[in-house]
Amino acid sequence: MSKIMAINAGSSSLKFQLFQMPSENVLTKGLVERIGLNDAVFTITVNGEKQTEVTDIPDHAVAVKILVDKLLSTGIIKSYDEITGVGHRVVHGGERFNDSVLITEETLKEIEELSDLAPLHNPANVVGIKAFQEILPNVPAVAVFDTAFHQTMPEQSFLYSLPYEYYENYGIRKYGFHGTSHKYVSQRAAELLGRPIEQLRLISCHLGNGASIAAIEGGKSIDTSMGFTPLAGVAMGTRSGNIDPALIPYIMEKTGKTAEEVIDVLNKKSGMLGISGFSSDLRDITQAAEEGNERAELALQVFASRIHKYIGSYAARMSGVDAIIFTAGIGENSIEIRSRVLRGLEFMGVYWDPALNNIRGEEAFISYPHSPVKVIVIPTNEEVMIARDVVRLANI
Amino acid sequence: MSKIMAINAGSSSLKFQLFQMPSENVLTKGLVERIGLNDAVFTITVNGEKQTEVTDIPDHAVAVKILVDKLLSTGIIKSYDEITGVGHRVVHGGERFNDSVLITEETLKEIEELSDLAPLHNPANVVGIKAFQEILPNVPAVAVFDTAFHQTMPEQSFLYSLPYEYYENYGIRKYGFHGTSHKYVSQRAAELLGRPIEQLRLISCHLGNGASIAAIEGGKSIDTSMGFTPLAGVAMGTRSGNIDPALIPYIMEKTGKTAEEVIDVLNKKSGMLGISGFSSDLRDITQAAEEGNERAELALQVFASRIHKYIGSYAARMSGVDAIIFTAGIGENSIEIRSRVLRGLEFMGVYWDPALNNIRGEEAFISYPHSPVKVIVIPTNEEVMIARDVVRLANI
Repeated sequence: MSKIMAINAGSSSLKFQLFQMPSENVLTKGLVERIGLNDAVFTITVNGEKQTEVTDIPDHAVAVKILVDKLLSTGIIKSYDEITGVGHRVVHGGERFNDSVLITEETLKEIEELSDLAPLHNPANVVGIKAFQEILPNVPAVAVFDTAFHQTMPEQSFLYSLPYEYYENYGIRKYGFHGTSHKYVSQRAAELLGRPIEQLRLISCHLGNGASIAAIEGGKSIDTSMGFTPLAGVAMGTRSGNIDPALIPYIMEKTGKTAEEVIDVLNKKSGMLGISGFSSDLRDITQAAEEGNERAELALQVFASRIHKYIGSYAARMSGVDAIIFTAGIGENSIEIRSRVLRGLEFMGVYWDPALNNIRGEEAFISYPHSPVKVIVIPTNEEVMIARDVVRLANI
Repeated sequence: MSKIMAINAGSSSLKFQLFQMPSENVLTKGLVERIGLNDAVFTITVNGEKQTEVTDIPDHAVAVKILVDKLLSTGIIKSYDEITGVGHRVVHGGERFNDSVLITEETLKEIEELSDLAPLHNPANVVGIKAFQEILPNVPAVAVFDTAFHQTMPEQSFLYSLPYEYYENYGIRKYGFHGTSHKYVSQRAAELLGRPIEQLRLISCHLGNGASIAAIEGGKSIDTSMGFTPLAGVAMGTRSGNIDPALIPYIMEKTGKTAEEVIDVLNKKSGMLGISGFSSDLRDITQAAEEGNERAELALQVFASRIHKYIGSYAARMSGVDAIIFTAGIGENSIEIRSRVLRGLEFMGVYWDPALNNIRGEEAFISYPHSPVKVIVIPTNEEVMIARDVVRLANI
């Protein structure tokens, strides 16, 4: 019996979820936002009720201290000792990490060194790790990488057709992201299908504000749509996905921006926001499209059709597919996007039922029972994967 | 009865082919290279025999003069008047041209204005047009655009998920290239299939040193792999195809190159050359792979698998496919690439015969007769398309 904390630290935020293991019951969860400001917001769920406090939280260590003290004061834990492990989401594990890892002085140094590959994310993840080391110095911690699950990709999938020395010298290759989510839903799909994962060809569509598609063969990721960074692949809320690389200097010339600034536009002002011109939120866009907004309709078409095409592409990659999985905010909740993505895949054996598709946020088959290819909606759970890896690697 | 010249002008070259129309017989063809140098090379086929001359050719007008005088001196024409039309390949027609066009003062100006979109190609094409105007001032000329066939793409296919004003203000969208080739082979496929093109869903793979895939529904291009420029899409001889756009600033930082220089690497040092490290020529690479060169094998895998995935993607795009077409240098001749591309597409109804695939450079079905999806090798013929458009548009 042990309590494990799953952490996702951003540069000014800290998401947490406390699990009772091995039962995997969630004891509490919450979020600290605006860390570094004197009006930081601490939100925690106690006995099913959300509590919010606005207070001065100068850094992540203070956030962790406030968090564990709150756990004590609310009786969720009786003493610090009850927290027997902490798991940290880390975005980039490079080629070094093909699995989660126990955090030691050495592995932490390696994670910091990978910041070159994920300058926006790994440093923040490291700050979160160090904050817990400061407040709970004797509790084992584990790093769980977004990239690790995709390390099984063969070279023909992960290699860009660039000068080979770019791969050797600079680590330029496809890494892929959302690995913890793709792993969770693929394992869950195998359970729901009642078949050994080793025999399955799965296409997993993680569709949230970020979106990625993975081809998972025999339980292993063999291809994925995101690339060297999470910018690549399909169109997303604010991200462009793949574009003609020659557009970068062309946009630079037309707008007077630097290359970095153009990439910033591609990350933050593109995707559905760029096309619709008013929102990156699929719910807003879906509603506007229903009300006749043409640019919103176009954003939906682009978003859905690129996912639709990836499904065809990954079915070809695996010489067929046994099940298609939808997960994450949009994948779990958007009836409209799922139906647009799935329409017209009968030629490859996908037969789905609009009535079954009429669900949000719950685990369900939405293909007809006779469909050769199953379609399953599976709410993702990256946090429980983190907790499981803590138990496994810290020998709890 | 008329003789039509089909021209493809580069910055220092001029490819020509003279057709007897309407029979479409090729009367002669050849090439002028190294224009601008005093050791330019003029090659022409006379009575089936190749003749080569090395001479001083300061500009394209001189090249055209030498060409027409050679046609006279060899008796291929009796007088200049016999050339009743000239057709020019022009790379970029922008959104202005969705069909070939008779060259007038106005349309020529428009073609020049499109040079912003194709700075490497349109200016050279214009030089070729002007050279013929100088030498054959009274002969009608027609421009045939590489992009025109793809102008039927719907907005959801051609629009990048970038800020919409980039499309409105700068013309940033997918244009697609090799249109004349995709059009020719798709029309020829309909003839070979004995079915109206309006009923067909075709995937055309134009695989040469440049390579592009097109989804052609009812005779109209509805999607294609190249983009704003011919750099996008699949890996090619020296071109990278799609990569994570965020790699551009990363490569700039690592190598000290400018954005333009990075794109130059992506255009000229990437693709199969970049991966193999020694050649962009598929024949060299195939041979090296057979001899055990691992990087050559990897280049083949990357090249073939990206095409393979596009086929899946475009089958999804059209809710199925009736025929897959291979054309251009590699598509017509590489047994190895065709077999790698086609392997594992049975799930979508593609059954092909390795024995039938054992052909080079000839028109042939390589699918089994019972295969629901047909696979056809069709040697492309952009020149005859150019000649046909001259006849149609110049009312010859």
